Amino acid sequence: AATFRASEHQHIRYNPLQDEWVLVSAHRMKRPWQGQVEPQLLKTVPRHDPLNPLCPGATRANGEVNLPLGKLLLLRCPFILGPSDHPLFQAGAARGVCKVMCFHPWSDVTLPLMSVPEIRAVIDAWASVTEELGAQYPWVQIFENKGAMMGCSNPHPHCQVWASSFLPDIAQREERCQLAYQSQHGEPLLMEYGRQELLRKERLVLTSEHWLVLVPFWAVWPFQTLLLPRRHVRRLPELTPTERDDLASIMKKLLTKYDNLFETSFPYSMGWHGAPTGSEAGADWDHWQLHAHYYPPLLRSATVRKFMVGYEMLAQAQRDLTPEQVRTLGHPGSPDHIFSS
Amino acid sequence: AATFRASEHQHIRYNPLQDEWVLVSAHRMKRPWQGQVEPQLLKTVPRHDPLNPLCPGATRANGEVNLPLGKLLLLRCPFILGPSDHPLFQAGAARGVCKVMCFHPWSDVTLPLMSVPEIRAVIDAWASVTEELGAQYPWVQIFENKGAMMGCSNPHPHCQVWASSFLPDIAQREERCQLAYQSQHGEPLLMEYGRQELLRKERLVLTSEHWLVLVPFWAVWPFQTLLLPRRHVRRLPELTPTERDDLASIMKKLLTKYDNLFETSFPYSMGWHGAPTGSEAGADWDHWQLHAHYYPPLLRSATVRKFMVGYEMLAQAQRDLTPEQVRTLGHPGSPDHIFSS
Ligand SMILES: O=P(O)(O)O[C@H]1O[C@H](CO)[C@@H](O)[C@H](O)[C@H]1O
Ligand SMILES: O=P(O)(O)O[C@H]1O[C@H](CO)[C@@H](O)[C@H](O)[C@H]1O
Repeated sequence: AATFRASEHQHIRYNPLQDEWVLVSAHRMKRPWQGQVEPQLLKTVPRHDPLNPLCPGATRANGEVNLPLGKLLLLRCPFILGPSDHPLFQAGAARGVCKVMCFHPWSDVTLPLMSVPEIRAVIDAWASVTEELGAQYPWVQIFENKGAMMGCSNPHPHCQVWASSFLPDIAQREERCQLAYQSQHGEPLLMEYGRQELLRKERLVLTSEHWLVLVPFWAVWPFQTLLLPRRHVRRLPELTPTERDDLASIMKKLLTKYDNLFETSFPYSMGWHGAPTGSEAGADWDHWQLHAHYYPPLLRSATVRKFMVGYEMLAQAQRDLTPEQVRTLGHPGSPDHIFSS
Repeated sequence: AATFRASEHQHIRYNPLQDEWVLVSAHRMKRPWQGQVEPQLLKTVPRHDPLNPLCPGATRANGEVNLPLGKLLLLRCPFILGPSDHPLFQAGAARGVCKVMCFHPWSDVTLPLMSVPEIRAVIDAWASVTEELGAQYPWVQIFENKGAMMGCSNPHPHCQVWASSFLPDIAQREERCQLAYQSQHGEPLLMEYGRQELLRKERLVLTSEHWLVLVPFWAVWPFQTLLLPRRHVRRLPELTPTERDDLASIMKKLLTKYDNLFETSFPYSMGWHGAPTGSEAGADWDHWQLHAHYYPPLLRSATVRKFMVGYEMLAQAQRDLTPEQVRTLGHPGSPDHIFSS
């Protein structure tokens, strides 16, 4: 039996935040790719399109005129759900609100192309919407699908906010894991995790006075990152003005790094997780640490993505290279071909 | 508060086989689609390509000549993994074998285009490989990624077999759920589930003497199906010759239905789940019922897929129509536009 080298030997890793195992098969990157190549991105998006319902001033199908930031899209009506008649046929009520929040009046920009003060305004809007919807709903999920490859159906820069009457599955897993860690170790899981990554320096992508960006030890997507405040912060609205400015600047750096890697407008889904809200907001949620996940689909270039299919859907998440290896995976000619430190 | 109608009111459903909640938002199908349209499929695949390593007679890079069925691709070497030094940095050994199994000597056919006896030969090969690798490994995952949209990197009809020294995450969840159900209710979860679906007749797609195909109550993918034997069978090798013949014929019917729906070679990932194998194969696994999952990505047409992104990656699985609604979702001109009964 040989000695273990993570970059050559297949192994499994545990995700302690979401209680999941990941298979890491680094040798797979050595294989040639004969599979699907994604269509080239549309090169030009008009700055303003009066027919695009996300453009400011455009009139929507229902006659409403768009608001520049934080537009309410859909309000679901309450209903009564009958009790389940069988343990294998359980359903429950799902009440909630969906919002679309535009980042900028122009359609042809993305967050990394916006100025730091413009990004700061988005952060403030995220904090407000968390406060506003969190007054009623136990979970407020802010997420951005960027790029057609990530199912984004409108090129105008925007994110969505789905607030729900229940804790979604992944929120429940993060709650369970963080609570268990705190009661066993006496401190928040992600506080200790961030400190360890600062010591180990193997997976850091960016650091600033108030924030860290790293490729988690248990990352599933090739260029997945975790964005963490250094201070113990449970929810977005708790961030100080200085922390918000610093967040705007580290976000601009991270997203520029992503764009530079394969010289493309880097697609991803991202979203924020923080302590539950709603009527239980006043309970003890000290085991929670605010964080954002970035899940980009690309693997080898601007047009070759990672497919989470077959084995991943039927058996276990699987990645084709170690989280430590992504550091030099980008396009060699790019200023950011060194992804992590 | 209005009365609940599943086809109009958003709700959540529980997946008792994998312990997960799914959000069902049927109203989403009413929205127009402005997002990514998949590239058209390659229309012609050559019947034989001497450069394709999966074609019989072709010589692989390592000098090996391909076998027509059940070729061994990669054997991983054992290694020693040091103990984890921190609870947030846990890794484990992952030993295993990967096989590629070709379905047919020709590159331009797929399972639904093959004859029933040819499909029967594939089923026999699945049973043998389960027996062969199951002698050593606790989990033998047979899966097929069909179509470029599902990350299939070679058009030659084939599946993969990944056998591992550990129970993958999803296998562990199915083990936990089926074991709990059996000890609470005294019979296998999927035996009772199949019986209920036969009674309720809302989600059946196909039935035969020995098999059922249905859209599960908790399906996540629009046209997801579950293929179940009627008899209590724990693993593929236990199937009788009659059950295998019947399986070949119902598979041909199901896959033809899929192809007809949107008049395209329907992409999907599919795979088999049965009781664990390896050194513990002799233990009591009576709570397990053999089954296959089919996960097709298409939503609206041959070129518009469902994206599992944003909310799905960060919060909870989400589908855009109810499992009962898929019955009439296909192309109206198609002979199989009525998908389920
Ligand atoms: O091994 P293949 O067929 O090239 O690769 C395909 O199946 C694998 C197992 O599901 C996935 O990890 C890959 O993303 C996919 O492209
Ligand atoms: O609502 P949108 O942006 O049209 O839709 C996008 O995001 C949703 C939430 O993640 C997904 O369910 C859809 O599959 C995706 O296309």
